[in-house]
This record gives sequence, structure tokens and C-alpha cells, in this order.
Amino acid sequence: MWLIWLVHPRREEKHALYQQVGIVGVGLIGASIGRALKEKHLTKRVIGIGRSASSLAQALLVNSIDEAHTRIGPEIADVDLLIICTPVPLVVDAVDRAWTILRPDALITDVSSTKSTIMAEIERRRPKDRPVAEFVGSHPMAGSHRRGPEASRPDLFENHTCIIMNSTSATPHAREKVKAFWRALGMRLEEMSPQEHDESVARISHVPHLVSYALALSARERDLKVAGPGFRDTTRLGGSPPALWREIVRENRSAVLDGLDGYLAELKQLREMIEKEDWPGLENRLTDANQCVERLGSVASSKST
Amino acid sequence: MWLIWLVHPRREEKHALYQQVGIVGVGLIGASIGRALKEKHLTKRVIGIGRSASSLAQALLVNSIDEAHTRIGPEIADVDLLIICTPVPLVVDAVDRAWTILRPDALITDVSSTKSTIMAEIERRRPKDRPVAEFVGSHPMAGSHRRGPEASRPDLFENHTCIIMNSTSATPHAREKVKAFWRALGMRLEEMSPQEHDESVARISHVPHLVSYALALSARERDLKVAGPGFRDTTRLGGSPPALWREIVRENRSAVLDGLDGYLAELKQLREMIEKEDWPGLENRLTDANQCVERLGSVASSKST
Repeated sequence: MWLIWLVHPRREEKHALYQQVGIVGVGLIGASIGRALKEKHLTKRVIGIGRSASSLAQALLVNSIDEAHTRIGPEIADVDLLIICTPVPLVVDAVDRAWTILRPDALITDVSSTKSTIMAEIERRRPKDRPVAEFVGSHPMAGSHRRGPEASRPDLFENHTCIIMNSTSATPHAREKVKAFWRALGMRLEEMSPQEHDESVARISHVPHLVSYALALSARERDLKVAGPGFRDTTRLGGSPPALWREIVRENRSAVLDGLDGYLAELKQLREMIEKEDWPGLENRLTDANQCVERLGSVASSKST
Repeated sequence: MWLIWLVHPRREEKHALYQQVGIVGVGLIGASIGRALKEKHLTKRVIGIGRSASSLAQALLVNSIDEAHTRIGPEIADVDLLIICTPVPLVVDAVDRAWTILRPDALITDVSSTKSTIMAEIERRRPKDRPVAEFVGSHPMAGSHRRGPEASRPDLFENHTCIIMNSTSATPHAREKVKAFWRALGMRLEEMSPQEHDESVARISHVPHLVSYALALSARERDLKVAGPGFRDTTRLGGSPPALWREIVRENRSAVLDGLDGYLAELKQLREMIEKEDWPGLENRLTDANQCVERLGSVASSKST
């Protein structure tokens, strides 16, 4: 016991982070959060809410939640933190309903991969006549092409980046508490406005998904026979769930179209150089791309918040 | 000794595969071939030829060759197999020169990633007045974004695919011997005509490289801060050497332009669906892409020759 105490001096402190946490939506992300919370002893109880009884059963089975409910009800009245992990179109309604039940000093966050529309709508619907739980928008940039609680992993978030929205009605105090939560799950933190967030994720996530889907579509059966690791890497995102990505692209439509046009302009410039046989020009642009990839490597290794 | 004999019953046979092998060009691929040959005891002696003294020194240092020469000379007179691993523009001249030195029963192969132009030119220059070493075009689909003999690995080829050209002047006997060589290095084999090869590699390798270069170019500095594993995977090929890829694209220009246009058509269709908010149509195409990615997985796992 003494040895454990010495090795984990902050165990008690971590234990005290939350009395109860609620998770709405127990898919890959929700169930992974639950497992991380329980494995790290960050809370005493995780209350799971989901639409599908089989997902809830699976979430209980993998020990990601302590109790399961099929709707947001009085069971969450005493949670300190409620994390909305539903598909994007359901987030606003979930927050709206949670406001009628949660204590005003509770916190709400989410994991949606688009932010401007959701955050504006949440702000619009926030009751102005009484204090309600503060909402802080989060986007933990971790995932898998696999789905559901059966694909969940308690270490899903370790060393990945979580973006916290900074231009909202939430107080700095609420933002700091939500940041502490993601940090406890092993994440690095970045702050951005919802607009900056949507533009950046369009370029580094949504456009790459579309690029990857299109690349998979352009290969013929006989090409696949000789495909190597390079093709596999560049088409991996093309295996992501279509319904989820249709929704993400729909929610972030205008930033995705802008990002896609920026990408198409770059690719068309390369195509034109090949067409016109401008080989020194092509080599110059490929060298510029090399530098971006190198910067990406150095940014990644120096990241820490 | 008896145990080793029982575990490796074909060791002696492998030892006898070649008395001497010549490797022209001791970069990543050439040096990796040399190390694989020596580690698997497939030949008694590897003769290395390179333009750069420092590359040759490094190739000797990593034990990929037994002797080093800066030009193709009488030292290769007795090799059974000569493997041309130079950049694409130098392959034809190397074969031409090798014909003046090699025995007519020797074999020549190469590792070039484009084939139609090279193979037509080699056939055009082949002396018709006397028997010369047969040339069998190969494309081992293995590599790295790193370069030079210092990046070489003896297991570089294990479980990757090698494409052997089947519509050439080479005899079936010569093709079988070259196939046996790559199989001994752990590769799976596919046969194609040079034209089929160039079309397929444009789509599964050259276009993905351009796609990846363009994606790296389209990211802004502030986007890189939040880039995750998905962006890293899709831009990994954008870190490949510019001079090498300028040459590959130049050599395979027309198939690359065709493949690029096929890809652009797919991506523009996705863009149009997003623009027009055709969400069911988008989800359908993303589902088609999923199926390609799944087929890629199942083709990869069922591959064996």
C-alpha cells in the first residue's frame, strides 16, 4: 500500500475530480470516455444514456458506465459534468433537455466535430431568465474508423489534441474545469473560436476524408491487386462511416467547400505543371509540400498544453 | 547443426541460386536487395556499382555489397543476374552498356516504377545480330520515404508485391528465373503488360502521391497545430523526395494525367453533391468508397503467389 501511495501520490486528488459524470451517447467516444474515467478513478459513478438498449448493454459489459438509461431523465440531476457524445444533429436538443434537470453549477461539454452552428444554436436556446449549467464546446480529436462501445478504448485520448472553444458565453472558470477534464484523460489542449475551429478541421480532417473517399472510388478492381502501403494509408479514411461523415460535412458545409476549393486549386496547379511539362516548377511545389510535412512532424512533437 | 539442417532444409538450394549478382545503383532499393541476398545466403558475391563514392562506402558499411565500382565494367562479366536500381532516366543506358559485358545467359532486371517507355526503348536498342542477356522488367512495390543505403533494410521486400512485365521479348524461362529471385526475397508476384502496369501504378501510387503533396500544400500553419493521425496518414506520401517523384511523374506522364483526371472527376462529384446539398447521394458514394476500401483489405489478405 505504501509503495502504491508513493508511486501515485495524486490518486486521492484525481478520485475527487467528480462525484458523478453523465455520458449521453455511448458509442465509440462516449464509452471510451467512460472507461478512461473509471480506469483512472476520476469519478465515483458514470451514468450512461443512450437510445439503443443493445449499445447500453455493451457499454455496461465493457465497464464504461455504472448505470444505463434510454433517455435524459432525473437520474442526471446530481452529475457534476455531462458529456454529450451523440451524433451532431442531436446535441442541441440534448443540451436543451439537460438544462431542465441539471444543477446550475454543473458543467456540460460535447465532442462534436463541427462547432459554429451548434454553439450558436445552444446560445440562442439558453434560458436567459435563470442560471443554468454552463456549456463549454470541446472537440477531442481522437477516434477510429470502428464504431460502437465494443470498439472503445480507455487510452483513446492519450496524447491526442482536444480543441476547446474560447469565444462563447462560458466563463473562464468553466473552461478551465473542462480543460482539466480532458487533460486528465491524457489530451493536449488548444483553444480556438468556433469559426477558426470549423475552418481548421475542414482542412485537416473533413477535406482529407473526402480526398480519401474519392481516391478509393477512383481505383479499379485490377488496380487494387497491386496496391501497397502508400495506397492503404491514403485511403484508410475512406473506410469511415458514411452516415456520420455525411452529417459532419452537412454541418460544416461552407468551411468544407472552402477547404475543398483550396485543395483542388493546389492539385490543379500540380496537374497543369504536369500537362505543360514544367518539371522544375513541379519539383519546387513538391519541395514546398515536403516542408509542410516536416513542419507537421515538428509541430506534433513540440505540442504540449 | 542437425537442428539447423532440419529447420532450414532448403538452405543449400538457396545458397546455389546465384554465384554472383550485380547491383547497379546502391540507394535504398539497391542496398536493401544486397542485404537481403546476403542475409538469406542467396548468392556468394554481390558486386555493387554506383556513381557516388560515399554511397558505395555506405553500402559496403551496411554489408549490402562485397565490392564497389563507380562504373559498369569488366567486373560484372561473370554475374548471373544484374539488377538495375538507378533512377529511371539512367536505366536504358545501363542495360545497353551491360549487354557489351555480360554473358548471353545472364539475366538483367530493374526496379523502375514506370515501364512502357523504358521497355520499348530497351527493346529498340537490343542488339539483333548476336545473343545478349535477356531483360525482364520488374517493379518491386516496396520502399520508404527515406533514401540512400543508410535507410536500407534486408526485410524491405517481405510480403510486398512485385509486378513482372509479361509482354516483352523475354522468354518464359527468363521470366520464371526473375520471379524466383523476387520470391526468394519474400515478395508476392503479379504479371502485367507494361501498359497495364503504368496505368495501375498511376492510380494506386503516382496519383496518391500527388493527392498527398496537394493536401500538405493546402494546410495553413495554424491548421497543423491541430492535425491528427488522419491528416498525418493522408499526407505521409507528401514527404517523398521531390526529384524522384518529378522523374516518376515525367516518365509516366500520360497515365498519371489520366489517373488524375479520373480522381478529380470523383472528387468534383462529391463536391457538387455537397454544394447542392444532395445528402442521400453523398452518403451513397461514401458507401461505395467504403466497399472499395473493404475490397482492398480482402484483396490484400488473399494475395499470394
